Amino acid sequence: MKKKAVILFSGGLDSTTCLAIAKAQGYECIALSFDYGQRHNSELQQAKRIASAFDVRHEVVSLGISHFGGSALTDHSIGVPEYTGEDEVPVTYVPARNTIFLSIALGLAEVTESDKIFIGISSIDYSGYPDCRPEYIEAFQTMANLATATGIDGKQIKIETPLALLSKKQTIEHGLSLGVDYSLTVSCYSANERGEACGKCDSCVLRKKGFSEANIPDPTRYAIAA
Amino acid sequence: MKKKAVILFSGGLDSTTCLAIAKAQGYECIALSFDYGQRHNSELQQAKRIASAFDVRHEVVSLGISHFGGSALTDHSIGVPEYTGEDEVPVTYVPARNTIFLSIALGLAEVTESDKIFIGISSIDYSGYPDCRPEYIEAFQTMANLATATGIDGKQIKIETPLALLSKKQTIEHGLSLGVDYSLTVSCYSANERGEACGKCDSCVLRKKGFSEANIPDPTRYAIAA
Repeated sequence: MKKKAVILFSGGLDSTTCLAIAKAQGYECIALSFDYGQRHNSELQQAKRIASAFDVRHEVVSLGISHFGGSALTDHSIGVPEYTGEDEVPVTYVPARNTIFLSIALGLAEVTESDKIFIGISSIDYSGYPDCRPEYIEAFQTMANLATATGIDGKQIKIETPLALLSKKQTIEHGLSLGVDYSLTVSCYSANERGEACGKCDSCVLRKKGFSEANIPDPTRYAIAA
Repeated sequence: MKKKAVILFSGGLDSTTCLAIAKAQGYECIALSFDYGQRHNSELQQAKRIASAFDVRHEVVSLGISHFGGSALTDHSIGVPEYTGEDEVPVTYVPARNTIFLSIALGLAEVTESDKIFIGISSIDYSGYPDCRPEYIEAFQTMANLATATGIDGKQIKIETPLALLSKKQTIEHGLSLGVDYSLTVSCYSANERGEACGKCDSCVLRKKGFSEANIPDPTRYAIAA
């Protein structure tokens, strides 16, 4: 039987690269997306198209947390800021988001008897979120081993972060070598309903820089000349 | 300003006792319930009534995980078994449930600037779930400190498990001393739409034993003479 893996999958550049990596490693992939009231909801439409292009099972879990507020990504009264390059945790941080996503992925991995969970986080060229750091993932792994019936049985559902030490440039180069079509992916924090990017938020700026450094024409569909 | 706490709140015996404890400790309480397709959905109605009786804010987060299956509590094709007293992880185990619930509580605690999260788990008189053990909670705490912007700021959102070392009898005695009305609480894994208990599942048997050992008339509303 083919090994299975759950991929945290937003339809953005990083998670699509992750999906390509897991598939290239021979996993039967289950792409897991969340409908959590994110401002950039068009990413879900793109995620669906990409999962279909990869011919993998796609699960979308609805999650009623947007009314908590506290983040520019879910609270429409907070504006998405333009890129500043500052070190502080930005207002686009969604409290405990990766923890919530990984926890649900853990449940799905256990139910489907998957060996691994892939998450496309990186601590290089990232937005400064606490839950993107290697020490965080290590602590999540320890907790996950104790949390599950699988863990009690002495098996481990392993969290894989293949992009952890890659710059955006390196991620793009790796993805292209695996045949990823980045024109399908949406990374923008405030993409419009057609999936077109703003070109100005953190995520857009980091992505644009990646293509530029890789010397690859940027295939991103921008809402305006950016 | 009053200190705040998020209480994981199902409307059952344990979480209601937890809510009473947090309130008695002077916290402004936010009771957090989940609509995750549980078989015993009437617990949500009771949870609402109890939160209202305690005069606390009540948040219900919808969580689309029931179609994952894999548990008798969400998969209606798996029957809820009667109590056996065996040591194995039972089919009522919902994969990664406490991890998912605690993660969402962590996000809510961060947004509301709460100091604590109360969860009414116990490793005495429990159903043998891996995510009820003290070593699990300890690992979750370590992970949570690394996951959040709050943690980066050197503050901790502390997970409190006031019932961890209490038997069901002791929990009931403690709750009664705080004025909890247990006739409002629903613990049954397959309570009917009126919130009446089956009297036969793990949860019912442990609860019944608790009242019996405490020498308190059992106020549970049973569907049948049980």
